[in-house]
Amino acid sequence: MLYEINEKALKLESEGKKIIRLNLGDPDLATPPEIVEAAYTSMKAGKTKYSSSYGEIKLRQKIAQVHGVKAENVVITPGSKWGIFATMFLMLRNGGNVIIPTPYWTAYDLIAKSLGAKTKLLQTEFENDWKVDLDKLEKLIDKDTRMIVLNNPNNPTSKVMDADTLDGIVEIANKKKITILSDEVYAAIAFTKTKSILDYDKDCVHILSNGFSKTFTMTGWRIGYLIANKPLIDNVTKLNQITINNVPVFIQEAALKAMEIQKELAIKIKAVYEKRAIMASKTLSKAGFQFSKPEAPFYVFPKLAGLDSEKFTLELLDKGVAVAPGTSFGDYREHFRISLTAPDFDIKEALEKISEAV
Amino acid sequence: MLYEINEKALKLESEGKKIIRLNLGDPDLATPPEIVEAAYTSMKAGKTKYSSSYGEIKLRQKIAQVHGVKAENVVITPGSKWGIFATMFLMLRNGGNVIIPTPYWTAYDLIAKSLGAKTKLLQTEFENDWKVDLDKLEKLIDKDTRMIVLNNPNNPTSKVMDADTLDGIVEIANKKKITILSDEVYAAIAFTKTKSILDYDKDCVHILSNGFSKTFTMTGWRIGYLIANKPLIDNVTKLNQITINNVPVFIQEAALKAMEIQKELAIKIKAVYEKRAIMASKTLSKAGFQFSKPEAPFYVFPKLAGLDSEKFTLELLDKGVAVAPGTSFGDYREHFRISLTAPDFDIKEALEKISEAV
Repeated sequence: MLYEINEKALKLESEGKKIIRLNLGDPDLATPPEIVEAAYTSMKAGKTKYSSSYGEIKLRQKIAQVHGVKAENVVITPGSKWGIFATMFLMLRNGGNVIIPTPYWTAYDLIAKSLGAKTKLLQTEFENDWKVDLDKLEKLIDKDTRMIVLNNPNNPTSKVMDADTLDGIVEIANKKKITILSDEVYAAIAFTKTKSILDYDKDCVHILSNGFSKTFTMTGWRIGYLIANKPLIDNVTKLNQITINNVPVFIQEAALKAMEIQKELAIKIKAVYEKRAIMASKTLSKAGFQFSKPEAPFYVFPKLAGLDSEKFTLELLDKGVAVAPGTSFGDYREHFRISLTAPDFDIKEALEKISEAV
Repeated sequence: MLYEINEKALKLESEGKKIIRLNLGDPDLATPPEIVEAAYTSMKAGKTKYSSSYGEIKLRQKIAQVHGVKAENVVITPGSKWGIFATMFLMLRNGGNVIIPTPYWTAYDLIAKSLGAKTKLLQTEFENDWKVDLDKLEKLIDKDTRMIVLNNPNNPTSKVMDADTLDGIVEIANKKKITILSDEVYAAIAFTKTKSILDYDKDCVHILSNGFSKTFTMTGWRIGYLIANKPLIDNVTKLNQITINNVPVFIQEAALKAMEIQKELAIKIKAVYEKRAIMASKTLSKAGFQFSKPEAPFYVFPKLAGLDSEKFTLELLDKGVAVAPGTSFGDYREHFRISLTAPDFDIKEALEKISEAV
């Protein structure tokens, strides 16, 4: 329902209605001007041709350096979602299943199913601090399991996975020889330090998915990357060759510029979203919602006993506020997701409308 | 071998070697500055967010107007190749076969096979003016045939399909209820007028694939479109939602600008490539090659009896000229493809080296 809500919100907006859009993780902040200028300079310099399906070597080297791997372990993708699709396309199109802890980002499940793969959902609950039960995980793995998808920090809970749980998951995956696909798009701007899948494994047995969208306010630029073992990187590149070919070079050069100014940007972005998270927490608590404290941008995932989140979401959209129903993230009918990705005064107004609506 | 040659050429260049790259259909002309400026204006205006997976409505409307269809029949894709992948993904992933006249663009075959579909190649020959044999086509169709792929004008021959043959193909397809996917990326800048698949069918029973790369010298921008019936457009959009999400809005606005100045651009581009085609024809004839006269940019597909085109291509690359072996386009060992997509003096030098090499 996530995408339907978005298309409906866009349609209402195009009809002139004001919609406060808290339904997507699309930061309201503008892409920093240095990044825009870098793209323009690159375009003017003629970087508007076909290029390598691996991505530009300078960008791959910079990413490799940041993550402590080799450039040959990096491929540039048009958004992190493409990287996830490509990985699943290569690993799941001949069948098998993938284990996904919930609540999860809708795309994992939709992608796996579009390829004919089965998904095995592993429920986690607010009441248990969103912890993955390691025994349940181990029991879910069968002979057809090809992959475990982690999202750390998590969308929609904004919860960072505790080190003990992550240690346990990696141990189980290694023992059973299952690949972990770790989506860490929110990691660089998390409020709390978190372990990366690469902390376990610089040889890239497992796969890291990452993107520029969240860290650099570059959602609409469509650029991300995968870090994996060389054979998989080579195969993703072959898939790139017959699909998207390459991410525009001027976008890759803009992304390289972004990485050069990452430190200052990250501090700014974290400050904005941490402040909003505190504001939202206060209002939502007062209105009687339960939720875990956000440890990363951009989401809060409140719960209210007895809530029908799909009905609630549609009614709220008619009142000019777009959020995402909990059912878009698994079996969470009593939850909904708020993205704190609008100007402060809009968020305030939206939170008031949400409080009134229950 | 097409992509391997390209990656090798890029590598040689990065090592400082001069390579005249006539191996890809990537125009040497720069993207017109009006288009670059439109992208920059759009970026600065904050068009850097997630957007509709259908594409921007203004661009869809403009494309619909040009082709005489409705906006709901148009979806924007990151390059025409993505549109072809998406169509095949939706129509062939559950099996079936696709008929492809040869010589063909490598990607059709690679895409179909990556999805587990079978390809049935329909050989055409220089000696028969590259005409599709309608009887052979009809006999190739079986109960599992899902699609016929046409490329008109054709890559690598630069031949425009004659109206009688196209009429015949459409008649057979309609009779047998097979979908035609017509890739017409070279049509807008063809030297000879050619019929479009939409001339037969404004209800979009068949599918048109097109792109901005060739018409507007925008290869590296990665933008194209599909025109099809609404259910297929909706399904491609759903696939976009779980893969590429959307083409950057600033790229779509640049493409809209491009369409506004299309007439003047097309005249300029045609003039450049027609001149080059004449120049190449002269030199190649003198050296004893046989080929059909190019009727569109950018290719010549010469033949020499007894040539081993793969060996020839690799030797030529060592001499600083990248072309594509005929075997990349089907069973054409005695052919190779030259892209006339370098400055005139480079093409001249390359043609001399080619003439010497045989």
